[in-house]
Amino acid sequence: VRAPPSNVAWRTVSDPGRRLPADALDELRAIVGDDHVLVDAERLVPMSTDWTGRFVGRAAAAVRPASTGEVAAVVGWARRRGAALMTQGGNTGLVGGATPLHGEVLVSTSRLNSVTVVDMASMQVTVGAGVTIEAVQQHAERAGLRYPIDFAARATATVGGSIATNAGGVNFVRFGGTREQLLGVEAVLGTGEVINDLRGLRKDNTGFHLASLLCGSEGTLAVVTGATLRLVPRPAAVLTALVGFDSAHSAIAAGHLWVARSTRIEALELMRADGVGLVCEQFALPTPLRAAAYLLVEVAGERDLDEELHELVECTDGVTGSAVAADESARRRLWRYREDHTLAINRLGPPLKFDITLPGAEMQPFVDSIASQVRGVDDEANTWIFGHLGDGNLHVNVHATTDAAGRIESLVFTEVSRRGGSISAEHGIGVAKRAFLHLRRSPAELAWMGRVRAAFDPDGVLNPHVLLPHE
Amino acid sequence: VRAPPSNVAWRTVSDPGRRLPADALDELRAIVGDDHVLVDAERLVPMSTDWTGRFVGRAAAAVRPASTGEVAAVVGWARRRGAALMTQGGNTGLVGGATPLHGEVLVSTSRLNSVTVVDMASMQVTVGAGVTIEAVQQHAERAGLRYPIDFAARATATVGGSIATNAGGVNFVRFGGTREQLLGVEAVLGTGEVINDLRGLRKDNTGFHLASLLCGSEGTLAVVTGATLRLVPRPAAVLTALVGFDSAHSAIAAGHLWVARSTRIEALELMRADGVGLVCEQFALPTPLRAAAYLLVEVAGERDLDEELHELVECTDGVTGSAVAADESARRRLWRYREDHTLAINRLGPPLKFDITLPGAEMQPFVDSIASQVRGVDDEANTWIFGHLGDGNLHVNVHATTDAAGRIESLVFTEVSRRGGSISAEHGIGVAKRAFLHLRRSPAELAWMGRVRAAFDPDGVLNPHVLLPHE
Repeated sequence: VRAPPSNVAWRTVSDPGRRLPADALDELRAIVGDDHVLVDAERLVPMSTDWTGRFVGRAAAAVRPASTGEVAAVVGWARRRGAALMTQGGNTGLVGGATPLHGEVLVSTSRLNSVTVVDMASMQVTVGAGVTIEAVQQHAERAGLRYPIDFAARATATVGGSIATNAGGVNFVRFGGTREQLLGVEAVLGTGEVINDLRGLRKDNTGFHLASLLCGSEGTLAVVTGATLRLVPRPAAVLTALVGFDSAHSAIAAGHLWVARSTRIEALELMRADGVGLVCEQFALPTPLRAAAYLLVEVAGERDLDEELHELVECTDGVTGSAVAADESARRRLWRYREDHTLAINRLGPPLKFDITLPGAEMQPFVDSIASQVRGVDDEANTWIFGHLGDGNLHVNVHATTDAAGRIESLVFTEVSRRGGSISAEHGIGVAKRAFLHLRRSPAELAWMGRVRAAFDPDGVLNPHVLLPHE
Repeated sequence: VRAPPSNVAWRTVSDPGRRLPADALDELRAIVGDDHVLVDAERLVPMSTDWTGRFVGRAAAAVRPASTGEVAAVVGWARRRGAALMTQGGNTGLVGGATPLHGEVLVSTSRLNSVTVVDMASMQVTVGAGVTIEAVQQHAERAGLRYPIDFAARATATVGGSIATNAGGVNFVRFGGTREQLLGVEAVLGTGEVINDLRGLRKDNTGFHLASLLCGSEGTLAVVTGATLRLVPRPAAVLTALVGFDSAHSAIAAGHLWVARSTRIEALELMRADGVGLVCEQFALPTPLRAAAYLLVEVAGERDLDEELHELVECTDGVTGSAVAADESARRRLWRYREDHTLAINRLGPPLKFDITLPGAEMQPFVDSIASQVRGVDDEANTWIFGHLGDGNLHVNVHATTDAAGRIESLVFTEVSRRGGSISAEHGIGVAKRAFLHLRRSPAELAWMGRVRAAFDPDGVLNPHVLLPHE
C-alpha cells in the first residue's frame, strides 16, 4: 500500500463568530429548559466538526428539544429572530450537511428518542428521530423481525439522519433505501406547522407523499421528529461469502449476472486487492484469499442457501476462490474487510470522498480508467474504489495533495456525469457537492426544487446553506 | 347471492357544453397534427366516461401528442388560453380522476408508446407513458426479467396512469407499488418546463426525488411522458394456493402470521364466500373448496416452495382445505376467483367502491362490523369485501339504493378514519373522494400539498378539479 501524500488537509474551517444575544438564549431556554441550551465551546466543538474531520464550523448554540412541540417552538423562534437552524442527528454524515459552517444554531435530535412496541400485525415500529439505526435493528430483532437498513455507522447514525440523507447501506439491493422503509413521519415544517402522520399505512394514496419527499431532502424542508418504519421477516438462514476474482472486470460481470438470476441476494459488495490489503494492514486482519478483486455476497432465505451460492459461483468466469461464513461470528469477520475500508482509509488522512452511482454498463470502463485519470491530475494521488455493486453505487476515495483537490473533484464529477451517473448515491449533497449539483440536475430541476423548498420553508430557517446552490 | 337494489345509478353526469373556438383548435392542430385533435362526439364520449360508468363528462376536445415536446407545447397552449387539461392513459381509473367533468381538454398518452431495449446490466427499461402494464411485463419477460407491478387492468392500464395513481396491485406485499419501481421520469410540469431524468439510477441522492413525488400526484403536478422502470429477476418457481378457512377471522390471522414468517410471499389476497360465489355464478367457474373465507397466496423463489407452503399452512389454525397450482394455467384459474371480483360485482350494477387501508390490528373488527353498519343505513345494501390482505388493503364494494349512497360513503370513510386507516389505498382521490380527504389529511397537510401544487402548476392547468379540494 502506497503512502498517502503528506498534505492532506483540504479542510473547510469556518468560525463565523456568531454568538446569540442573551435574550435570544433566554427564549431558547424557556422552550427546552436551561440544561438543553448548549453554549460552551467544549460542548459545541465536537458537534461543529464532521465525522471525516474535513468540515469544521462553529455553532452559535445547540438546543436539545425533547418533543415535537419544542421543535416547533424552536422553529418559530428562528423565524422571529431571523436565525438559521441546522438539524443534527448522530453527526456521522460525510458531506458537511450537519456542520454549522455559518454559525447556525444546532437542533440536536438526541432527546427525541422514544421507541414504541413493535406492531406485529402491521410489521412496523414508530421511533423518535434521535434513535440510532442499531437500536431500531435490535428492537426489531427482539420482536422476531428485522429492520433492513444497515450500514457501518449504525451505532451512532440516527433514524432522522437516515431520512435526511435517504441512507441506503448494504442491503439496498434487496430492500431499497430508507425511502422504501419509511411509512410515516412526524415533522415540523419550515413554516412551523406540525405534520403528524405516524399511522404507518404502507398503501395510502391520498395526495403527495411527504415521507418520500422528506427522504433525501437533507433537513431543508422540515425537522423530522419521528418515523414509522417498515420491518421485514428475519430470514431463517443467511450465508455470506467472500469470492475472489482474477480481475475487477470478472467481479463486476459476475455481480450483474448474479443479481439478474437470484431473488435472494441481499448484499453484493465490490472490493479490490489494494483496499482489502489496507484494511488488513491497518487492523491486523489475516489476509483473505488472494485475488485481484472481491465480491462479498450475502444470500438469505429459508433453506438451501449453500446450494444456491454454489450454483451462482459455478456459472461464473474468473473466480479464483471463495470463503463462506455460515455463522454470525464468521460472517462479521468477512464483513470487516468491507466495512473497515472507510476507517482504514481515513487513518491515512482525510480522503476526498466520492459516492457515485453509474449505469450498469458504465461500471467497468469507469473502474478501469478513473485511477489513472486522477494520477494525470496529481501523480501522488491514491484512488480507492469499493462499494455496493448490486446498486451501481461505488465509493471512490482519493488521497491527494491539497492543491489538486479541486481539480480532482471536477475531474471525477465530470467523468461521472459524462457517463450518465450521479454525483451522490447515498451521502447527499450537503455543502461538499453543492457546487457540482448542476452536473446532475438541470436548471429546470433546480428551479422546481427551489420552489418546493420555498413552499416548505419560506423564511429559509432550515439548513439554508445545504443542498441547493444559493440563488 | 342476493340481487342488488334496482336503482344503482348514482352517477355523476356532467356536460359543461364547452367547445373550443376554431382558432384554439387550429393552434392545437398545429402542435399535434390534424389527425390528433379529436372533436367528434363519437370519439370523445368513450374517453369522457370512466370504467365503472359512474362518472360521465364531456371533453371539449382530446389531443394525442406524440412527443414530450408536443406535450410541452400543449401545456403552453393551455396556459395562454386559460384552458384546463386532463391527462388520460388507459382510462381504467376508478375515482373519476381522468373523466372530464368540467369540459377539460383531454391529453391522451396513447402515442407516447416507445419501448427501449431492456438494460440488462442495470435491470431496467425505459418506456413511454402510454405503454400498457402488460406490454412492459411481456417486454421484461422476453429479456428473462420481470416487471413486478401487476393488477387486473394490466392489458389497458398504462405506465403513466400507474404513476399518477401509484398503482399497487397483487405483488405489493413483496415489491411495493409503482413508486418503488420508478427510477426516473420524463415529464412536463405545469409551468411548461420539461424534466428529463431517465438515467435510471436506483441510488441517487441529489435533491428532492421527483419520481416519488409524481407517484400518486394524480396528474396535478406534471404530465408524465416517459418512465424508467426497475425490473427484477424472474423466480425459478412460483406456487399458488387457494386456502380455505372456517372464518374471515382465521384467514386474517393466518395472513398476518405468514407475512411475518416468510420472505417469499409475493401475493396474499383475501376473499369471502359471497364474493367467490358471485364470481363462480357470473363466469360459470367451478366452485372451489367450500369455506367461509379464502386466502390466495403465492410464494416464489428458487426451490422447495411446496415445502415452505406446507409448513406455513401446517402451523395455521382454521384451515379447511387448500388447492395448489404449480403450472401457469392452473395458476391463472385460481387467480380468476380473485381478479374477476371487480367484473362480477360490476355486472350487478355500478357499486360504491371503497379502496381502504387499515392498520393490521383493525382489520378483523372492521371486516366483522362494516356490512351490518352499512345495512343500518340501507337495509337493501350488499357489501362485498376482498383485497390485498398482505398490505392491509381491502376493497369494499357496496351495492345500495341511490339515495343512501352519500350516507354510506360518510359511514365507511368515517369508520376507516376512526380506526386510523386511509380512505384510499391505491385508487387515489380523483373527484370521487375529494370531499372526504379531510378525514385522512390535516389542514396543515392539505396546505403544504396546495403550496407544492402551486409550485408546479401556478396557473392550475393540470387536472385542476382532481385530488385537492378547491380553495
